[in-house]
Amino acid sequence: MSSFFETVYKGSLTLLTDFYQLTMAYGYWKSGISERESVFHLYFRKNPFNGGYTLNSGLELVIDYLNQFKFSEDDLCYLSSIKDADGKELFEKEFIEYLKDMSFTCNLDAIQEGTIVFPYEPLLRISGPLIQCQLLETPLLNIINFHSLISTKAARVVSVAGTSQVLEFGLRRAQGVDGGLSASRAAFIGGCSATSNTLAGKIFNIPVRGTHSHSWVMAFDNEVESFYAFARAMPNNVIFLVDTYNSLEGVKKAIEVGNWLKTQGKKLGGIRLDSGDLAYLSIEARKMLDKSGFPEAVIVASNDLDENVIASLKEQGAQVAVWGVGTQLVTAFDQPALGAVYKISAIKSSTGHWEHRIKLSEQSMKISTPGILQVRRFSNKNLFEADMIFDTLSSDKIKSSLIIDPEDFTRFCEIPKNCESEDLLVPIYREGKLIYKPPTLNEIRERSFTQLRKLHASIRRLMNPHHYPAGLEKKLHDYKLNLIYKFKKKDQHEKRATDLNASM
Amino acid sequence: MSSFFETVYKGSLTLLTDFYQLTMAYGYWKSGISERESVFHLYFRKNPFNGGYTLNSGLELVIDYLNQFKFSEDDLCYLSSIKDADGKELFEKEFIEYLKDMSFTCNLDAIQEGTIVFPYEPLLRISGPLIQCQLLETPLLNIINFHSLISTKAARVVSVAGTSQVLEFGLRRAQGVDGGLSASRAAFIGGCSATSNTLAGKIFNIPVRGTHSHSWVMAFDNEVESFYAFARAMPNNVIFLVDTYNSLEGVKKAIEVGNWLKTQGKKLGGIRLDSGDLAYLSIEARKMLDKSGFPEAVIVASNDLDENVIASLKEQGAQVAVWGVGTQLVTAFDQPALGAVYKISAIKSSTGHWEHRIKLSEQSMKISTPGILQVRRFSNKNLFEADMIFDTLSSDKIKSSLIIDPEDFTRFCEIPKNCESEDLLVPIYREGKLIYKPPTLNEIRERSFTQLRKLHASIRRLMNPHHYPAGLEKKLHDYKLNLIYKFKKKDQHEKRATDLNASM
Repeated sequence: MSSFFETVYKGSLTLLTDFYQLTMAYGYWKSGISERESVFHLYFRKNPFNGGYTLNSGLELVIDYLNQFKFSEDDLCYLSSIKDADGKELFEKEFIEYLKDMSFTCNLDAIQEGTIVFPYEPLLRISGPLIQCQLLETPLLNIINFHSLISTKAARVVSVAGTSQVLEFGLRRAQGVDGGLSASRAAFIGGCSATSNTLAGKIFNIPVRGTHSHSWVMAFDNEVESFYAFARAMPNNVIFLVDTYNSLEGVKKAIEVGNWLKTQGKKLGGIRLDSGDLAYLSIEARKMLDKSGFPEAVIVASNDLDENVIASLKEQGAQVAVWGVGTQLVTAFDQPALGAVYKISAIKSSTGHWEHRIKLSEQSMKISTPGILQVRRFSNKNLFEADMIFDTLSSDKIKSSLIIDPEDFTRFCEIPKNCESEDLLVPIYREGKLIYKPPTLNEIRERSFTQLRKLHASIRRLMNPHHYPAGLEKKLHDYKLNLIYKFKKKDQHEKRATDLNASM
Repeated sequence: MSSFFETVYKGSLTLLTDFYQLTMAYGYWKSGISERESVFHLYFRKNPFNGGYTLNSGLELVIDYLNQFKFSEDDLCYLSSIKDADGKELFEKEFIEYLKDMSFTCNLDAIQEGTIVFPYEPLLRISGPLIQCQLLETPLLNIINFHSLISTKAARVVSVAGTSQVLEFGLRRAQGVDGGLSASRAAFIGGCSATSNTLAGKIFNIPVRGTHSHSWVMAFDNEVESFYAFARAMPNNVIFLVDTYNSLEGVKKAIEVGNWLKTQGKKLGGIRLDSGDLAYLSIEARKMLDKSGFPEAVIVASNDLDENVIASLKEQGAQVAVWGVGTQLVTAFDQPALGAVYKISAIKSSTGHWEHRIKLSEQSMKISTPGILQVRRFSNKNLFEADMIFDTLSSDKIKSSLIIDPEDFTRFCEIPKNCESEDLLVPIYREGKLIYKPPTLNEIRERSFTQLRKLHASIRRLMNPHHYPAGLEKKLHDYKLNLIYKFKKKDQHEKRATDLNASM
């Protein structure tokens, strides 16, 4: 595919960032530290949907975004017009000139699309001039948060559907134009077979699917006439929506027209149910179709489906070959945001050596991990066994064999014996130069399937999944804890000093 | 503002529609009815968030979309490439030619942006060639569903915030690029004061706001140094994020730098709290600031806020002047889709007279309303009293004075006496020509405020709001019921006939 952002968006998207990134950028520049080399990681803290895993995606859009990263004349003109509280220009002219000359010169390492990932694992690691890393925070989060969320949702739906197909039908209730376009791509990565979104089909080369709606039936004088008209117009693409007036009566009419199609040497593709009791109706419809000589006609079901409804319908014996999933999928209805964050973890001092950085918080899960991190995955035959987050700065060779959960220190595991290992973050950019060839969308989708097969079923299941062992290498864990203690101690000293001052 | 779609999007968005709209379009064309005049309405069935009202928005984006509606060479080339199940081209060349010549020639009537609306009221009424109305279903739904959803969410948040400001901070977790951009516009209409989304600021001329994040603090050797650096860089724009290490210690440092700012003839703008117990911390911080001579320094709060959290914090006495609301607002987290639908309600027969159309369903709320509809709002002094949906086709003059709820027929009201009335749907396009001058974004925002003030407080409240009287004019209600009975009767006859056939 050609670049998504280049294909779809006209102007520069460089201003697609929080305004405070620009005020900070200005502050770094004024403070003379805008070019200091620094390292940021993008990671999430909790798998979405109370699930056991997350399916990572969005990297190609990140690449698209970085490739266009450059302030346009227009952008700079807008920034120049912004006033501070005194009514004067907020940004100095020299800073605007500085932005004009800026281009992307960072290193980027990333976990590839279609990879299963877990909380606290850096999905992106960006290192380079502080100012660039800072400006990129918001767009990178926007892209990865939404894309990975929808790919994960799709993977859940597809896993429940089993051998039946899942089509993504969500555009009409997606969150805006791109809420539809990006969702179609992400859902395809997660295993959907096709989309109803024609523009997404065109841009991403995803198969498009669809036959007709209730309006079609209502545009004619009666249902059977509308079915005949459709069959005449597209005899090779006949799936009748049967519930405009009464679903099972509709099936009878579909069968009538199916018989006519046979006389034309064509066949009835199937029917679609869009309301009512989908379990009961699909079972009855299946019987009717089979009895009438249409065992190959498929039953498509739609109507506010998600993984839980599909699981329940299947349990009830629903005879559905194709699931059309819309709103619940493209908006990730039960959890419409992933909540990944982007934190600085190291910065080069003026003397040129790396300094670790940690963000504290009264909420322990909000404490960041210092270092320049990598994720090593240990696999045994065809199963993922454990993931270890380690600091490449303090040791390239891992000496410890313990992995400790970042939230619950009593949960840890030994690196399993006789395992293969693989480092998940791979080089994407070096000094602003793209050195990675993105796979095709079909290759990414295949990777998703392969990765999901390597995940134990107990981790894949929808309800109360097992916890996959993923955490910090012990030395990194110890180092992080020490930093926290050091800060808290200093904090208490300062507090005591201030309190003493106040009481004197 | 200039056109959103023209500013942001490069190519044609005409294919931003469900693929079945195109197969139906083809079917209509093959059946010779593609140019038949028809009427479609766009409406929702339930106020979002269990609320008592919906704030309508998105019309200007609809206009943008319609202004660009034209199949590009590229679009047609893609459509020509699509194959049917037999591997042959799905669409005939003549149809592609027909699409090439198609331009928007419909009439559009719409309820203006910033208007309070209720379930079953048509927000858009489009009439014209069947094929065009059909193709436009998906994009119109996409735009109105998301926009009105976010404006309504923003109105709820802003109403709870009262005299304090609400800033929209959601871009990083928005659903894609446009999930951010459209949300910023919609949230501003709903009453937000500013956005963090710089590109939205540029495109829509919305005020942008923001100061610094944790990364700023962590980029320096310690917190107080980072505060001094920020104050030196932007002395007129100083709001310090104080919770990187310890919130109240951070406040002390903010005060220290605030004192220094005083010596420079500048002032401390305020502080921001982004974690921990926002009620306790804001109360303590307020005391500290006041005691130190900074009564004008504002306290900004953020961290997964929504209308319920804000209400609770205010009840606890939180001293917050500015609320930064992100994820929950821009994704409408608790209900991320509005669920509006788009239904055909009348079509001109071959002899040139209008025929009503109705969609039945086993779910009564899914039954559509036939006719060419208008909404009349009755107001008494400064309060909205009731809304009546009526059919302009059967009578331009309303003869009945009863309004009946579309879901619960036992709930009805008389048109209140001595009321003013106003028809909400206004002409936007006539035969494809735009005859409406869209108001500015600020005017739309003002309209929202005015409209909300005219809604009784019991309908505006968050929890278990009163039900606003809005429904079908009695004649329309009766006509609709008759149509349903007629269909069901016919249905039973047919069913009995088929059953008899089957048993013979």
